[in-house]
Amino acid sequence: MKLWLFGLYGIVSSTAVAGIKAIQKGLSEETGLVSQLPHFKEIEKYSPLSFEEFGGHEIRSLDKNLYTELEKHWEKNRHFDYKILKALKDDLSKIKAKKGTALNCGEGVLQELSPIETLENDGLHLAEIVEKLEKDITDFADENSVAINVASTEPLIPYDEQVHGSLKGFEKAIEEDRKDKISASMIYAYVSLKNRIPYGNFTPSTGSSIPALKELAEKNSVPHCGNDGKTGETLVKTTLAPMFAYRNLKVLGWMGYNILGDLDGKVLAHKSNRESKVRSKDKVIEKTLGYSPYTITEINFFPSLEDNKTAFDFIHYEGFLGTKMKFYFIWDAVDATVAAPLIIDIARFLNFAKKKGVKGVVKELSFFFKSPMDTQNYNTHSQFETLVKWFKGLNP
Amino acid sequence: MKLWLFGLYGIVSSTAVAGIKAIQKGLSEETGLVSQLPHFKEIEKYSPLSFEEFGGHEIRSLDKNLYTELEKHWEKNRHFDYKILKALKDDLSKIKAKKGTALNCGEGVLQELSPIETLENDGLHLAEIVEKLEKDITDFADENSVAINVASTEPLIPYDEQVHGSLKGFEKAIEEDRKDKISASMIYAYVSLKNRIPYGNFTPSTGSSIPALKELAEKNSVPHCGNDGKTGETLVKTTLAPMFAYRNLKVLGWMGYNILGDLDGKVLAHKSNRESKVRSKDKVIEKTLGYSPYTITEINFFPSLEDNKTAFDFIHYEGFLGTKMKFYFIWDAVDATVAAPLIIDIARFLNFAKKKGVKGVVKELSFFFKSPMDTQNYNTHSQFETLVKWFKGLNP
Amino acid sequence: MKLWLFGLYGIVSSTAVAGIKAIQKGLSEETGLVSQLPHFKEIEKYSPLSFEEFGGHEIRSLDKNLYTELEKHWEKNRHFDYKILKALKDDLSKIKAKKGTALNCGEGVLQELSPIETLENDGLHLAEIVEKLEKDITDFADENSVAINVASTEPLIPYDEQVHGSLKGFEKAIEEDRKDKISASMIYAYVSLKNRIPYGNFTPSTGSSIPALKELAEKNSVPHCGNDGKTGETLVKTTLAPMFAYRNLKVLGWMGYNILGDLDGKVLAHKSNRESKVRSKDKVIEKTLGYSPYTITEINFFPSLEDNKTAFDFIHYEGFLGTKMKFYFIWDAVDATVAAPLIIDIARFLNFAKKKGVKGVVKELSFFFKSPMDTQNYNTHSQFETLVKWFKGLNP
Amino acid sequence: MKLWLFGLYGIVSSTAVAGIKAIQKGLSEETGLVSQLPHFKEIEKYSPLSFEEFGGHEIRSLDKNLYTELEKHWEKNRHFDYKILKALKDDLSKIKAKKGTALNCGEGVLQELSPIETLENDGLHLAEIVEKLEKDITDFADENSVAINVASTEPLIPYDEQVHGSLKGFEKAIEEDRKDKISASMIYAYVSLKNRIPYGNFTPSTGSSIPALKELAEKNSVPHCGNDGKTGETLVKTTLAPMFAYRNLKVLGWMGYNILGDLDGKVLAHKSNRESKVRSKDKVIEKTLGYSPYTITEINFFPSLEDNKTAFDFIHYEGFLGTKMKFYFIWDAVDATVAAPLIIDIARFLNFAKKKGVKGVVKELSFFFKSPMDTQNYNTHSQFETLVKWFKGLNP
Repeated sequence: MKLWLFGLYGIVSSTAVAGIKAIQKGLSEETGLVSQLPHFKEIEKYSPLSFEEFGGHEIRSLDKNLYTELEKHWEKNRHFDYKILKALKDDLSKIKAKKGTALNCGEGVLQELSPIETLENDGLHLAEIVEKLEKDITDFADENSVAINVASTEPLIPYDEQVHGSLKGFEKAIEEDRKDKISASMIYAYVSLKNRIPYGNFTPSTGSSIPALKELAEKNSVPHCGNDGKTGETLVKTTLAPMFAYRNLKVLGWMGYNILGDLDGKVLAHKSNRESKVRSKDKVIEKTLGYSPYTITEINFFPSLEDNKTAFDFIHYEGFLGTKMKFYFIWDAVDATVAAPLIIDIARFLNFAKKKGVKGVVKELSFFFKSPMDTQNYNTHSQFETLVKWFKGLNP
Repeated sequence: MKLWLFGLYGIVSSTAVAGIKAIQKGLSEETGLVSQLPHFKEIEKYSPLSFEEFGGHEIRSLDKNLYTELEKHWEKNRHFDYKILKALKDDLSKIKAKKGTALNCGEGVLQELSPIETLENDGLHLAEIVEKLEKDITDFADENSVAINVASTEPLIPYDEQVHGSLKGFEKAIEEDRKDKISASMIYAYVSLKNRIPYGNFTPSTGSSIPALKELAEKNSVPHCGNDGKTGETLVKTTLAPMFAYRNLKVLGWMGYNILGDLDGKVLAHKSNRESKVRSKDKVIEKTLGYSPYTITEINFFPSLEDNKTAFDFIHYEGFLGTKMKFYFIWDAVDATVAAPLIIDIARFLNFAKKKGVKGVVKELSFFFKSPMDTQNYNTHSQFETLVKWFKGLNP
Repeated sequence: MKLWLFGLYGIVSSTAVAGIKAIQKGLSEETGLVSQLPHFKEIEKYSPLSFEEFGGHEIRSLDKNLYTELEKHWEKNRHFDYKILKALKDDLSKIKAKKGTALNCGEGVLQELSPIETLENDGLHLAEIVEKLEKDITDFADENSVAINVASTEPLIPYDEQVHGSLKGFEKAIEEDRKDKISASMIYAYVSLKNRIPYGNFTPSTGSSIPALKELAEKNSVPHCGNDGKTGETLVKTTLAPMFAYRNLKVLGWMGYNILGDLDGKVLAHKSNRESKVRSKDKVIEKTLGYSPYTITEINFFPSLEDNKTAFDFIHYEGFLGTKMKFYFIWDAVDATVAAPLIIDIARFLNFAKKKGVKGVVKELSFFFKSPMDTQNYNTHSQFETLVKWFKGLNP
Repeated sequence: MKLWLFGLYGIVSSTAVAGIKAIQKGLSEETGLVSQLPHFKEIEKYSPLSFEEFGGHEIRSLDKNLYTELEKHWEKNRHFDYKILKALKDDLSKIKAKKGTALNCGEGVLQELSPIETLENDGLHLAEIVEKLEKDITDFADENSVAINVASTEPLIPYDEQVHGSLKGFEKAIEEDRKDKISASMIYAYVSLKNRIPYGNFTPSTGSSIPALKELAEKNSVPHCGNDGKTGETLVKTTLAPMFAYRNLKVLGWMGYNILGDLDGKVLAHKSNRESKVRSKDKVIEKTLGYSPYTITEINFFPSLEDNKTAFDFIHYEGFLGTKMKFYFIWDAVDATVAAPLIIDIARFLNFAKKKGVKGVVKELSFFFKSPMDTQNYNTHSQFETLVKWFKGLNP
């Protein structure tokens, strides 16, 4: 398999690539990889764990390479054994990104990643940007290639039926260079799906979730999925909330307060970028409980933590005879470490789906997402069962 | 329906009865009652929520009544609105226990409940005890009656094939007054099942879990279930542990440290009584993960908490690339409040089962138990789905 | 002693009065009263614990009384034994507030306490308001009377040297009815100090902390103190932060996230009202550490908690060889319960001070405040030692 | 200065040495060193931070060196930057221990450190062991040398007036080879004090706390201090408990549950070794509060944590009007990281004391100990003030 990553030099992408390489060299276990569970052992036939090549788009300066960037992330986080880092130096140094786009990525991205290098800054029109990105990705891809969006969270662009409602409208907007209506994640999804490369959106950005791009995926018979990787606090929320529902315990309020440093924290400190993230995290309580208790869902910047995202949750609930009771949890994990293996998993399942003739939104991959497309299944357990059943159904 | 409770004056029993009465009088909501979830709405036809009568056996002095005992529990815990307590005074004062047995209930029970009044202290032989208990329960029960064991945790009696392995052996031991081999929970289960009264064991004591009594239930076509109500920390454990399994995260260690005051805490402070409880709580990690990480499972006495059981859990796990991460939770609940509604639920489901012709161990009720009989299903989510499926299967 | 409370019907005031009455009737212990520690036993001679009379100003409707209001608070919080509430009914029903002022109390107070009844709403000029308030308080007070501000937090009024910088300017502004420059807490402080009644400001509102009122206190030889009672999370912060300083451990960041329901939470949910509170809470870290680490200090509304304020704190610090480590704490207390006894303590110490001839700001009472006036001593331990030393110094 | 460490190859010792070397090479800050606070800046004249030489006794195999041992600890804990480790390789490789004693060190030490090499295993009598240890330490020491005990915790040897009550009795027991009465920590203290080398006991073992050795210190005019470094949970306890006392809040119960892996955890998992530790940790609550609430103080083994000791504390307390409230904290630190700098601090303060003519127990160093000798001052804040005052008193 080959894997193309939008946001190749970020900590999640680079950790994912490092992990695969480390496993291939026998330097690390397969812990954290859902696709390596016994339930999915037939996946090896379709999407082997051995990835041959990695590439991607970036808006950071192109005189870097995957090793130089991973090393910077590692120095701040020490999120795996330094011997692994050293052992991968030669391999990772060869992996270099192509120049991408930051269209409508918001103040957060522009400021925190500055200086950035993008195709639009080179003066290209939308159609030229698309053409350039397509060339990069088609030069790279073969029949077993998948593209995943792991770039920073974009602000939401208001839905415009004319542009986002149909493939025709979308392509017309590209021709007309409507840069106000189209964001980087949409463009990336568009070039992937147009070239029959399965696309996964690991971010809360719009990506392929608009009718125009869903239409394109159906038309081209290519599978896609998203949005927003369910990695940390939200994973716990969607695991625990059902317990209260099963026991008919009434949740009075649920506070979730997240802190992190690192680029992600900096970008999310910008209000417009944060908005889409919080929206994605917040609604899961309602979806898993079936009603809307009072909730607090916040993300705040805490520089010294770097990528060690920490969440403080408090659940106030009412039980028999009206008695109020309390539950607290603290999630203390390295964000890249919990996110990276899911990138690999999603790529493998998408490639598997494509080979099995699945096209359009693969809602059975909801297990991996905070805001799964085209499904109301937010319960982690039901999602896992759905995934297993879907996989087994395609492997009779 | 009628409900017979072994350990009627305890905080769980008395809170359960108070809750039903409060609901009937419109003083309280139905929060906490699983059987009132929309999934089970047909249960009202078979086991209506309106209970007509309550009774039970006790080893506390018989000049008390349910109100005097509940008031004592309430003074220490204030676990519901005092107006409810006052409003129930007349009703609850009329409910009085019959003299029971504390056979092989261990030092903990003998010391902490002292002075106790039991049939064996009156000099009765086993056969006489059985006869006396049978009379009490048959005088009380009708076709819609269920018996639940909510007495204090007994030490484990070593399994003896001669006595526990067959109904014949068990009845022979009664005849021969083998008081060394038979405990209170077994006797209670025996008199219930012998008289076709469904029996639920909410404690980790042996109850109906020996072959002799399973044989009796089959023979008499009566349903039973147990053991050990899954009310607090263990409920969370069996809800959360699957999350780590689904994500292929490797649990390195799981610490669970529980503190409580009240009679339960005092009894469990006695080593022999604690043993069966800890065993029941500890094994769920292995059962839900599929392997055995290092675990700490402890219960300790903390007098000022009374029935406000508090649990501190720490999960150390390994993710992608071998990184160690942490998860903490604190469970802060009133034990009786989370336990009491389950008594009602179990009674209703057992009565429903009986009417539907179900006999023997109802393993589909595993959702309610820490150590469910005859099943390996410890995952809270699967258990809930199993319950719903079973119920719907009997209500086509 | 007699105690006059601005904000008499609030939960803190009413709980303080109830507590004193309960102690006098032998219904409660003296737990929580600093002034009852052995260190201060001579205070009984000057400011006996037996208070004779209570009164105060309010902006809630005057057809209420202290019992009706306390009962409402109690119904939501059950923060003491219901038997105590009942036993105090007659006594507390007799205590009734006089109509007060809500001048410049902000949107939070106006909206959340609506409908309110105030002297300014009756069309009175500032000078008339002062006159009316003075009459109320002088009718009530004797030589052993103290006034404490426990009203809701006001937004900050920008400092204006002309008005706030001197007593003359302040009194001129009253004459000229400059309602834009003067807030309720200032007026209350003014009428107290003008009439030689010691004044304590338990809130972060301005109160007596402006030069004009400090001048008045010096001139009239009356002691006063404030601001903002140090009751909960801040008490812990100022106790713990010194530990990091003593051990030369470098605090990298300190997160403090507070949630509460009740009126206080509602008022603080209004940005302008919250501002002065957060400012008061936030600076203590810098003051106790001697440098400014990254801090998060937030207060948020969480309705179901009512007055059960809960705080989540996370301290990230660096130790030997640059290693980062973590400390977490959770504060789970009833705000009124931790605040109420301090009202009594402050009143007793102020009355003691007056009798000992102390005038002006009593900075030795910093132990009771988040933002103590005229001192840089924020360390709880040093504050306690200072209090003891001061007290002993006046009792040779 | 020169520093001699009993237990040189342990994680605390080796981290302390590494830290000093790293600071000297400019690779690390001085964070964590109390003696580098501005309050103590004159100490540099007497006990400069630049240590010239390190040595010590060990019972681990002597073909190792400080670098090989530190590297093992580091591999498990990564408790500082790996670049520092590499940079110190040459320096630390030269530091080698001399063969020591494990007399009466208990099952824990014998089993967990096995195979061990000790003088007693070589068949030496007590007098010969003393002679050999003295030779090692006198060969090493100069006028600016201090010895600190950082070896594993020993079980308590019952006090025997004949042996421990006087120097004469102690020396007689050595002559008579009474190996049943004397433990390693006593022998180490004896050889240090006999040779006028200040001795600090960082462990809960007996060390110099018996009358015999206090007599020796007085006679030889040499300062000593101990016992049991106050590094983690106990530091927090003795900082926080005073807060409850100052506010007249009644602690109902205090639970402290500690988990750790590593050698320390393994040794403490042995009941006899654990006993002295728990006793030392437990009594501080009573000492700081002035009364004895219900307490739980436990230490348990949790292998995956290695040296990352984690403590869970729960404080249940009563406030005004009898209301029960709760406080929780979690201590998550690397034990060696918080302990190591204190070794350096104690050595510097002891050397300073010797130069200032201080002899016998230096109770003013109680700030560093869980069970300070000859003082009732357990309050962290008072201890710090005492230390500062003592230091300034000797530096007029």
